[in-house]
Amino acid sequence: MPTIQADVLRSFAKDLLTAGGFSTKDAAQTADLLVWANLRGVDSHGVLRIPRYIEMIEQGIMTSGGTPETMCEFGAVTVLDGGKCPGAVGMNAAVEKAADSAVKFGLGWCAARNISHAGAVGYFTSALAAKGLVGIAMTASKPLMSYVGAKGEALSTNPLSIAIPTGPDSDPIVLDMSTASVALGKIMAAKDAGRDIPEGWAIDADGNPATDPNKVAALLPMAGAKGSGLSLMIEMLTSVLAGNAVIGPVLTGLKKGGFNGLVLAVNPEAFGEREAFQTEVTRLAGAIHALDPAAGNAAVLLPGERSAQTGRTRSAAGIPLAAGTAKRLVEKASQLEVSVPDSLA
Amino acid sequence: MPTIQADVLRSFAKDLLTAGGFSTKDAAQTADLLVWANLRGVDSHGVLRIPRYIEMIEQGIMTSGGTPETMCEFGAVTVLDGGKCPGAVGMNAAVEKAADSAVKFGLGWCAARNISHAGAVGYFTSALAAKGLVGIAMTASKPLMSYVGAKGEALSTNPLSIAIPTGPDSDPIVLDMSTASVALGKIMAAKDAGRDIPEGWAIDADGNPATDPNKVAALLPMAGAKGSGLSLMIEMLTSVLAGNAVIGPVLTGLKKGGFNGLVLAVNPEAFGEREAFQTEVTRLAGAIHALDPAAGNAAVLLPGERSAQTGRTRSAAGIPLAAGTAKRLVEKASQLEVSVPDSLA
Repeated sequence: MPTIQADVLRSFAKDLLTAGGFSTKDAAQTADLLVWANLRGVDSHGVLRIPRYIEMIEQGIMTSGGTPETMCEFGAVTVLDGGKCPGAVGMNAAVEKAADSAVKFGLGWCAARNISHAGAVGYFTSALAAKGLVGIAMTASKPLMSYVGAKGEALSTNPLSIAIPTGPDSDPIVLDMSTASVALGKIMAAKDAGRDIPEGWAIDADGNPATDPNKVAALLPMAGAKGSGLSLMIEMLTSVLAGNAVIGPVLTGLKKGGFNGLVLAVNPEAFGEREAFQTEVTRLAGAIHALDPAAGNAAVLLPGERSAQTGRTRSAAGIPLAAGTAKRLVEKASQLEVSVPDSLA
Repeated sequence: MPTIQADVLRSFAKDLLTAGGFSTKDAAQTADLLVWANLRGVDSHGVLRIPRYIEMIEQGIMTSGGTPETMCEFGAVTVLDGGKCPGAVGMNAAVEKAADSAVKFGLGWCAARNISHAGAVGYFTSALAAKGLVGIAMTASKPLMSYVGAKGEALSTNPLSIAIPTGPDSDPIVLDMSTASVALGKIMAAKDAGRDIPEGWAIDADGNPATDPNKVAALLPMAGAKGSGLSLMIEMLTSVLAGNAVIGPVLTGLKKGGFNGLVLAVNPEAFGEREAFQTEVTRLAGAIHALDPAAGNAAVLLPGERSAQTGRTRSAAGIPLAAGTAKRLVEKASQLEVSVPDSLA
């Protein structure tokens, strides 16, 4: 498995995306998002996405070089239309706008509708936390998992992230969760390994629990009706409110897909003194760390803490890239005549 | 099991609460909240709470007759302090304030801190939906379930509700979920019945999975780290931001408890035309209803739909009250010299 320094990978990713049709600015923003995910160990949302992103540009499913357009603005609410821009570009614009509104109104809600795949949403809430704001973000897309009690795919695995600033020199607390019971990658891994999967992960074509990964017809939502309901509500808040519904039109045959994001920024200073807020955040974080670990757990961690630790390790020692990912990036570089970093050559 | 008409139960509940020390206004608001839960089949959040609420007034843990005080207001953000008022009173005030802000700013965030138990939070989001707004509400309280990977109780079962208006003459879509894997009542029922509980519901004193309901030391959060993280974030958003942290101070021995609520109202008209929004909500609801039910399911329902159906049945036929609940209410009425409705006498 080749190992590559984050800045080298970021630069390589940017060159690949630029050669693949991204504007320089869009390529830089997308590369930063992808490498952030790799740094934190979320390789499924990292640079392995690049060949598909370039293909999406070629197919016209994604466009680059434009600027998200403000469709409406009322008080603390803004709707941007990305015109199929890269997810990072639409969501970064929403982060800026929501943060501005949070300074003016105490909170800001910015929809980024009609964008492309937004990757690891924790990136955007972390950006708000870095500004001293509480960040909430979610994205919504086409059917990828089941609705509770129904056969087939009906809802997306719509993720939700919430980040809390902990002070200028320490990591934010970052929850970043999908509404599915399990990542699709785990079912693919069980299939590759010839292993059964536990009940509760997926259903078969009849809507019965699937334990044979080859018979999976749809992922199950997390926690049954709760995950199903939460995913449906993320579609309502993120797509339907913003005027770009996805699930309803796809299920009724009017559309094939769609992707939307939502950023909500909350300004702790609207609630009183920042210092009092940060003191209590620190107390709560300390109290969680001081909990007695259950059997099999070395330590009790806050949301996002393990990823931040991985980030420090990988920042220092480099990012281990799966051989298949490295191979596909090198092939793409060769096609596009992009020079390959020594660590991957 | 005695059956009682909703309006008779509401009036009896109001009389009991008034005799127990609630102001007339607070008693009316609380009775309406409790009977709403009974109507919808959520009897655990219904009138069975009345004896404890009266006890809380006697003990000074709850106070009645005051008005929630505005602690700070900045743009679309308001913090109310309830001074230990009944949950319904604090949350209703937050609903009004958040709705006002949503008309002015497109959205409104109102914290109702330092209130008492708020019951079924879907009541408050439904009230926003009845005003044509999208409603989000959550409440936060003291440790009642475990934190992922830790022994003992560290987090609350903090509920989250989201309601979507579907038009002037139809039920809103109402998600109302706790962040626990299961309601504590289910574990108590298994204990009473001498049945084992499935893994995933609770842990024993060592933090290992408990299947013997007598060895339960703490409920587990729903979906592991996801439910644990979401509950922690609800404490951050609802308690810490509002200046009345609960979990941190309780875990470090500074406090014994506390209760806070948060209401967020979103105005669909800030995003464009209401008609377009309602059309897409209706399309999505129809597409969910049209899904093919999985084995064992007669129909595919929207969040809150079964409760709304129960509400119609119970509105017509009356509310069946558990014998124990009826007995305790009649005893309390006798103590407080409140006349008992014929259907319970």
